[in-house]
Amino acid sequence: MRRILLTCEYDGTAYVGWQRQINGLSVQQVLEDTLSNLLHGEIRVTGSSRTDAGVHAMGQMVMFDTDSRIPPEKYPFVLNTLLPRDIRIQAGREVPPAFHTRFLSCGKLYTYRIINSPHGSALWRLRAAHVPVPLNLDAMRKASGQLLGTHDFAAFQASGGTAKTTIRTLDRCDLSMDGNLLTIQVHGNAFLYHMVRTIAGTLIDIGHGRLPLDAFRQALETKDRLCLGPTAPPQGLELTRVEYPEEAFVHPENLRWHTGDT
Amino acid sequence: MRRILLTCEYDGTAYVGWQRQINGLSVQQVLEDTLSNLLHGEIRVTGSSRTDAGVHAMGQMVMFDTDSRIPPEKYPFVLNTLLPRDIRIQAGREVPPAFHTRFLSCGKLYTYRIINSPHGSALWRLRAAHVPVPLNLDAMRKASGQLLGTHDFAAFQASGGTAKTTIRTLDRCDLSMDGNLLTIQVHGNAFLYHMVRTIAGTLIDIGHGRLPLDAFRQALETKDRLCLGPTAPPQGLELTRVEYPEEAFVHPENLRWHTGDT
Repeated sequence: MRRILLTCEYDGTAYVGWQRQINGLSVQQVLEDTLSNLLHGEIRVTGSSRTDAGVHAMGQMVMFDTDSRIPPEKYPFVLNTLLPRDIRIQAGREVPPAFHTRFLSCGKLYTYRIINSPHGSALWRLRAAHVPVPLNLDAMRKASGQLLGTHDFAAFQASGGTAKTTIRTLDRCDLSMDGNLLTIQVHGNAFLYHMVRTIAGTLIDIGHGRLPLDAFRQALETKDRLCLGPTAPPQGLELTRVEYPEEAFVHPENLRWHTGDT
Repeated sequence: MRRILLTCEYDGTAYVGWQRQINGLSVQQVLEDTLSNLLHGEIRVTGSSRTDAGVHAMGQMVMFDTDSRIPPEKYPFVLNTLLPRDIRIQAGREVPPAFHTRFLSCGKLYTYRIINSPHGSALWRLRAAHVPVPLNLDAMRKASGQLLGTHDFAAFQASGGTAKTTIRTLDRCDLSMDGNLLTIQVHGNAFLYHMVRTIAGTLIDIGHGRLPLDAFRQALETKDRLCLGPTAPPQGLELTRVEYPEEAFVHPENLRWHTGDT
């Protein structure tokens, strides 16, 4: 049995999200059905992050076990001829049997995009949120600094989160503007359910002047969700990159699993 | 009667192109139907450029005549509630009756996007061409310089072009790479039918080493289409901006029309 790790990009528009659901087609189901057909047996895949309906991924990390002797680096070529065009496999490699795509990740980069213009964008409508009111970028940048470091992000977790601990470390929350396109990049060790969309929604409200400059600080101190803005819409969010310690590819059995992350 | 000029953005994926066709839905038809309903009378619109099926626009310029007393700057708000989300009106203004959206334009900026990676992109599949082989960007940049200036671009015109003259002036052909996304921006006074896609297809072949570095120079000298590469696919192309001389908004009757441009 070999454990294979795939790097998977997808446009989340057409899917109910990463995870298999009874109410519609998920990315996980498409991958499992395609792999099961290809490898003539039932394949179950495990992703690094459970992205919601409409959320995109540039680098979802997906593992599965198989007896197949297909060289791991050939999986992108084989799978991409079988998969719909809104799902692409960008890389494949073999990892040790004790590797785990979810419990061994040590860092994630998310990108949240906003079209900040009166009338929105036809071309970005499925890949960015639309904010019609002018945003104070300086205020948003200042506020984002309050997120950096190790904090209890309990206030940032939507109901439905299953994390055992809500302490997380963020080391990056950068905003950049290119024309009307505002891009927020958030990097941390791990994230709670809806955490990035809550950060984005709060930044929008701070930029709009509807929330005070220290909303993040208040939320971290009081752990009160009401200090924060709304959960920003899913189409603006992209799971950009998932990182693992080098040891995960060599001796994963030496590493401790972290649990309950989404 | 007032002449109204709209700035129109669209995602060309779902349309047979800008121009009304009997075989499918065009952007022109959607705009005409929507305006006719809104203004209770048949409205015909004229665009600055006839984009092909699958080609996008950030700034298609569209004019129409109406007796309506809707303030011109209100058209984006009114129309965007009625139009599908893949067509957005970004601006509206009144122009003199002798203004012409097509025959008075003095400059156009086109953007051509290429995903240059082995497996393509799920997220850019409808907005960029995919080139799986490595491209020599230096060679492409050197070659693009040969296009600058005033030349007879006869070799760059697809059959079906209706231009009276094939002499055009290009003052910009820039290439920039951001990750796997190669962006080509071409600016000139006017363009022939399929000219930008022929430039893009030739640049790709030069970058791949399938065409010599002086392919553009040869084509300009010999006017032979066979010196050039294939017409690159439509989804990579975007009409980014259309420009007019200031006089067009004040005394357009003083300006000479140029004709036959696409």
